[in-house]
Amino acid sequence: MKDLIKLKELDHEIYLLSHGIALLQWDQETYMPESAVNERSEQIALFEGILHNKLTDSIWGELFANLSVDDHSIPEKFNNNDNAFLREAYRRYRRKIKLPVELIKEFSAEVSISQSKWIKAKKEDNFSIFAPHLEKIIDFSRKIADLVGYTEHPYDALLDEYEPWMRSSGIKSVFDKLEPGLRSLIGRIKNAPQIDSSFLDHNFPVELQNQFGKKMQKEMGYDFERGRLDLTVHPFSTTLGYNDVRITTHYNKNDLLSGIFSNIHEAGHGQYEQGFGEDIQGSLLANGTSMGIHESQSRFWENLIGRDINYWANYYPELVKIFPDQLKYVSMKDFYKAVNKVEPSVIRIEADEVTYSMHIILRFRLELALISGDLSVKDLPDAWVAESEKLLGVKSDSYSNGVLQDIHWSAGLFGYFPTYALGNLYNAQFTNIMKSDITDFNLCLQKGELAPIKNWLREKIHRFGSSVSATDLIKNISGESLNPDYFLKYLEGKYKTIYDI
Amino acid sequence: MKDLIKLKELDHEIYLLSHGIALLQWDQETYMPESAVNERSEQIALFEGILHNKLTDSIWGELFANLSVDDHSIPEKFNNNDNAFLREAYRRYRRKIKLPVELIKEFSAEVSISQSKWIKAKKEDNFSIFAPHLEKIIDFSRKIADLVGYTEHPYDALLDEYEPWMRSSGIKSVFDKLEPGLRSLIGRIKNAPQIDSSFLDHNFPVELQNQFGKKMQKEMGYDFERGRLDLTVHPFSTTLGYNDVRITTHYNKNDLLSGIFSNIHEAGHGQYEQGFGEDIQGSLLANGTSMGIHESQSRFWENLIGRDINYWANYYPELVKIFPDQLKYVSMKDFYKAVNKVEPSVIRIEADEVTYSMHIILRFRLELALISGDLSVKDLPDAWVAESEKLLGVKSDSYSNGVLQDIHWSAGLFGYFPTYALGNLYNAQFTNIMKSDITDFNLCLQKGELAPIKNWLREKIHRFGSSVSATDLIKNISGESLNPDYFLKYLEGKYKTIYDI
Repeated sequence: MKDLIKLKELDHEIYLLSHGIALLQWDQETYMPESAVNERSEQIALFEGILHNKLTDSIWGELFANLSVDDHSIPEKFNNNDNAFLREAYRRYRRKIKLPVELIKEFSAEVSISQSKWIKAKKEDNFSIFAPHLEKIIDFSRKIADLVGYTEHPYDALLDEYEPWMRSSGIKSVFDKLEPGLRSLIGRIKNAPQIDSSFLDHNFPVELQNQFGKKMQKEMGYDFERGRLDLTVHPFSTTLGYNDVRITTHYNKNDLLSGIFSNIHEAGHGQYEQGFGEDIQGSLLANGTSMGIHESQSRFWENLIGRDINYWANYYPELVKIFPDQLKYVSMKDFYKAVNKVEPSVIRIEADEVTYSMHIILRFRLELALISGDLSVKDLPDAWVAESEKLLGVKSDSYSNGVLQDIHWSAGLFGYFPTYALGNLYNAQFTNIMKSDITDFNLCLQKGELAPIKNWLREKIHRFGSSVSATDLIKNISGESLNPDYFLKYLEGKYKTIYDI
Repeated sequence: MKDLIKLKELDHEIYLLSHGIALLQWDQETYMPESAVNERSEQIALFEGILHNKLTDSIWGELFANLSVDDHSIPEKFNNNDNAFLREAYRRYRRKIKLPVELIKEFSAEVSISQSKWIKAKKEDNFSIFAPHLEKIIDFSRKIADLVGYTEHPYDALLDEYEPWMRSSGIKSVFDKLEPGLRSLIGRIKNAPQIDSSFLDHNFPVELQNQFGKKMQKEMGYDFERGRLDLTVHPFSTTLGYNDVRITTHYNKNDLLSGIFSNIHEAGHGQYEQGFGEDIQGSLLANGTSMGIHESQSRFWENLIGRDINYWANYYPELVKIFPDQLKYVSMKDFYKAVNKVEPSVIRIEADEVTYSMHIILRFRLELALISGDLSVKDLPDAWVAESEKLLGVKSDSYSNGVLQDIHWSAGLFGYFPTYALGNLYNAQFTNIMKSDITDFNLCLQKGELAPIKNWLREKIHRFGSSVSATDLIKNISGESLNPDYFLKYLEGKYKTIYDI
């Protein structure tokens, strides 16, 4: 047991150190004077270096060997949490030591250049400025995949960083089932009369938006005693400690909905991290088990709760009280329809609940082809347009609004996109069970009683952190593996009523 | 030169790491959820440990040896900044390696207990709760002094941490000259009619105090583009980077003056750190050269500027505009007198400009006797009362308001107190020269033109950071070593008019 205790001590240092880095980043986005940015970057790089050295220290290898933990087995003699700890710690260590520090540094340097080139390319609507750097990023990503190793597809090695234990073949078959269902629903909605949301073109003072947002967050169970809400350009959630899970938001006085749903979304992320069990506190198990599960928690609150008619049955009267001049002539039902307006567009981050996953399928397919070499960077813009027309029926009028719209590729984040859509799918499958467990689900929402929902999530998902993998979580809860039919069924049921189709 | 470059790289890492720790501490005082305090302590301890390892790495010793830097000499072949760098880096390294990490840990643990016992003792007005812990703190301090080494008095080794190159014998002789002058002035003021400041018993809304405070800070030259002001229970200033020097303040709606002078004081500290020259940026030379000089910069603005009649000639009309109901019947002269009211009292932190140094002389003498063993902890309370009556003519009615009033001893900060009074003395001596350099000094204040003053401080003091020691600074500027006569002369001149004595 001495070796296991030592491993846990080392892991706890990494836990503390990572949260220190998270504070440096949080502060940079919230309160740091802008002119301090260069020194802050240096600071973060130094701390990352210290962290890397601690993560790759050979003592880990010795301790794993002493405990007979290797690529093939985790000994059975530990309890469940200890097994999970060893599994996750070993996975992290193996990945880290396979990647030489020099390669990581070169990659970071290229990412830094690549991001500035992407910004320029997007601004000037000129793909060729970014193209050579995208090629380099893809080369690096392939090199990393080769070093990390994979059995089926190099993409799997990249995906593993964000959605552990998942393979691209699994995602491909899920997305292949999802696509026709979405396509059919989108087609029918397109042919139905469009929802009018022009009553939202008003001025909604941000202080009032903030007051309403914090109330919603508090009532959904985000704990302000163990967190806080601040303003940033781009909203995010970050964990600085077991009792210190912070979220941020952004308000635009002309866009009430963006503020509302950003508040709910980030509080969903925050609630997940606040819900890790005390038994895994202070260890690497106190972490989201995958990006997809993390995204499921934010999107659950944002879409399945925050865009439910029963939720607004409770909150809409309050919203009208706060914004009487703007909303007094708008019915709850019209407001509900406006927050669920479906409109295929070229921009992913503006997409609604129905079309969103199509943006992801598009990116996933192109990423897969870029990494395997089936698609060259030169041919990417045309492939983007073709796939976009096929999946969404829309065609971007520029590179900037099309292939250059997202930061992810310039940031070297190949493998990240699919997790956004997986979140939607996990959710629908979880919620199916949740609704049979919480029989008065709709009544709870109507009465603003959100505690049973939060408690269900905590009990079934949050408390485990990464001790239970995403694939096991979905099986444990629903009794089957990931199945996109639940998501499709949920959308069909909801939008049939909204669009009367 | 390769060795010097390597030393500078190592030092830069320490610079970045220290600022990371400073952020952890700043955040704890400003925005961190209270419930995160235990984990934050763990984090800080971990980072301090990493810092300690970097500071005591044997590579420093090797590099100093290669460069022939030892206890006796710094080679002459470097430029001034490089010599200063080597001198300061060597001084830091020598001090660090002389103190075994185990001793530091034991001391920290004792400080932690000692502080909680001090809080309890103060609350219950029971010195005996704290006494055994104070004895331990003194034992540790003596041990540290022995390990660090000294030639005259063990206290010198402690003092060196806060006021480098200064010795207790020097401070003793300065204080011995200061005491009779202060005593005489205090006596005459006591016999004069007291100033009426009852017109300050009003409600001054804190948002308005903040508005006025930030304006003063901006105009004295604290750069908000490279810093920021936040609210904390106890005001402080901290540096997180060359372009990131933050200050905090505290407002009490019933105490206008406390907010005003805390704002000026902290902005003075901040301005010093913002003024380090670009040539020393990112190194250990970008640091206050001593606590006394740091305190001189805050007290210069707080007392010599912020309590000057010409300063209020400019600012008082603005203050009345902000608080018309509270101040419209109060003349500038009456306000000026109120901010300069002298009243011997038992509490150091409430003391005025005249009596303040007496509180320090009291503590310095007792510290010296405790460390040398001439005074035992058992006899400390009686000694406190006797010395307090002798120096200030007042007697505290409890331990809590007397010997237990300050946190410093429980925090293990023996050697720190004298720097507060040194700040006052440095100031008066600097200002004497400044006023002959800036011939229209009073007119500048009357017109609110503070730039010439800030520029003088930057040119003569700030830009050097710790490349020039406090003792050299005072000599370079004034042509003589520290002389308390300037301070006494300044006080005599000012208070003769105020109290008509």
